Amino acid sequence: MLIIGEKLNGAIKAVAEAIKNRDGDFIRDLASKQLLQRADYLDICSGRPDCDAEILKWMIGLIQNDHPDVRFSLDSPNPDTILECMPLCKNPGIINSVSLEKNKTGSIFPAVADKNGWKMIALLLDDTGMPETVEKRMESFHGITAKMMEYGISINRVYFDPLVFTVGTSPDSFLNFINTSKEIKKECPDAHIISGLSNISYGLPYRKALNHAFLVGAMMFGMDSAIMDPLNRDLLGGVYAAEALLGKDEYCIEYLSAYRDDLFGGVK
Amino acid sequence: MLIIGEKLNGAIKAVAEAIKNRDGDFIRDLASKQLLQRADYLDICSGRPDCDAEILKWMIGLIQNDHPDVRFSLDSPNPDTILECMPLCKNPGIINSVSLEKNKTGSIFPAVADKNGWKMIALLLDDTGMPETVEKRMESFHGITAKMMEYGISINRVYFDPLVFTVGTSPDSFLNFINTSKEIKKECPDAHIISGLSNISYGLPYRKALNHAFLVGAMMFGMDSAIMDPLNRDLLGGVYAAEALLGKDEYCIEYLSAYRDDLFGGVK
Repeated sequence: MLIIGEKLNGAIKAVAEAIKNRDGDFIRDLASKQLLQRADYLDICSGRPDCDAEILKWMIGLIQNDHPDVRFSLDSPNPDTILECMPLCKNPGIINSVSLEKNKTGSIFPAVADKNGWKMIALLLDDTGMPETVEKRMESFHGITAKMMEYGISINRVYFDPLVFTVGTSPDSFLNFINTSKEIKKECPDAHIISGLSNISYGLPYRKALNHAFLVGAMMFGMDSAIMDPLNRDLLGGVYAAEALLGKDEYCIEYLSAYRDDLFGGVK
Repeated sequence: MLIIGEKLNGAIKAVAEAIKNRDGDFIRDLASKQLLQRADYLDICSGRPDCDAEILKWMIGLIQNDHPDVRFSLDSPNPDTILECMPLCKNPGIINSVSLEKNKTGSIFPAVADKNGWKMIALLLDDTGMPETVEKRMESFHGITAKMMEYGISINRVYFDPLVFTVGTSPDSFLNFINTSKEIKKECPDAHIISGLSNISYGLPYRKALNHAFLVGAMMFGMDSAIMDPLNRDLLGGVYAAEALLGKDEYCIEYLSAYRDDLFGGVK
C-alpha cells in the first residue's frame, strides 16, 4: 500500500494559520510525524491561489532540508505551480492531480513523461461534470490512457482515482467506486487505484466508521494507495490488517513490525 | 446483517465464574446489554460438559423471564443438550452448529426440519479434518445442502460458515474464506454466510484491527451475519458503515438511527 500523507494542506485550519505566519517549525513537525508513520509521499497544498507556488516552494525547502529523501505529492489546481515546483524536488514525486478537465493534460503529461520516476494521480472525470456512472468513469479512463500512450507514460506511473461521493446522498457511491476498480483491473491488471478516504462520509456523523470501512472495502477490490492521514492510528492499523488478510503480507511480518514500531495499536 | 451476540459463553472467564456461582444477575445483565446493542440472537454456551444442558436451561429461563421475545443461539457440541433445550425456547432460535462431522446431521437436521422458524449454522467441515482448500469446503457445502434437501430444510434457514484460521500462520485464510463465499453465492445467491470474527487474528497482537478488517472485508463478499461482540462499539459501527457502503442502507437511515441511539461512536 502506498500512503500519501494528507496533513500539509492549507484547507486544514491549523495549517492555514501556520502558512499565514510562515511558521516553519509547525510545517517541519507535521512532515516529520507523517514520515515516521511511514507516509511514502507528503502531499503539499497551499490553499492560497494568491501565492500558491511561493508557499509550496517554501514547504519543499523546509522539509527537504530535514529529510533529503522525502518525496512530495504536488497538490495544486494550477499547472504552472506544479511545473515551477517540480525542478526543486530532489526526488521524483507525484502530481496530485490530472484529469481530462480543462486540458490539464497538455502541460502536465509532457512534464511527467520527461522526468524519470515522476508519477501522477489521474481523476476519472472530464469537462462534462462529475461522473455518475461506471461507464462515464471508464470513458475518462480510456481518454487518460490514450493520452498516456501518446506521451509514452507507462501504466505503473499513474494512480487512477475512480472518485467517490458521500453515501449520505449517493447510495451507489461505493458500489460505483468498486465496480470501476474491477473494470480497470480487468482491462489493466497492473493499474494502480487510489482514493482519498473522507469524501465517502461527508455530512454524516462519526465519519471515521465510514472512512475506515471504505479503506478496507476498497482495498478488497484492488485499491493499493490512499491519500490519508497516517497519524490516524486506527486507519493505519486498517491498512496493515487488510494487507495481511489479502495475502500481501505473509505471516504478518509487516503487520508485526508496524505494531512493534508503535504505528498503530494502543499508545505505548 | 444478522448479529449473534457471543458474550454468554463459558469460555469467557467472567462468565465461567458467574456460571459456577449461578450468578443470575450477571447473566441477565449481559443478556440485556447485548439486546440493547441490537443483537438478533443471544448465543449461550456453558463451557461445562458435566452439566451442559442444566446450565443452558438455567440461562434460558432467566433471560426469557426478562425478555419474552429473545431468540437464542443454542451453542453446544452435544446434540442431546440441543434437543433438550429446543422445546424450552419460546421463540424459534438457531442451532450453533451442525456439520458433517460425527453424523450430527442425524439428530439435529430432523429436529430443525420439524420446528417452524428454527435455523442452523452449518460449518463447512467433515470428519476428515479442518479444510485447507476452497474445494474441500465446497464438498462439505454440497454434502450439507444434500442433507437439507433430504429433510426439506430450505436454503434461507441455514447460515454457512466457510471457516477461517489465523492469518498469523495461514496466509491464505481470508482468501479461502472469501473465495468459498463467492462459490456459495454463485451456486445459491440466497445462501447466508456467517462467521465468528476472532479466529482470523489468533496469536497476533492488537487483534481488533484484524477482526475489524475481517468483518468489513467479509461483508464485501456476501457475509450477512456474524457471531460477534455487539458491545464492541467499533465493530458495531463497522457493521452499519459497511451496510451503508454496500447500498443496503439507502441514505444511511439505519446508520443514522444507530448512531442516534448511541450504539456506536464516542460514548455520549
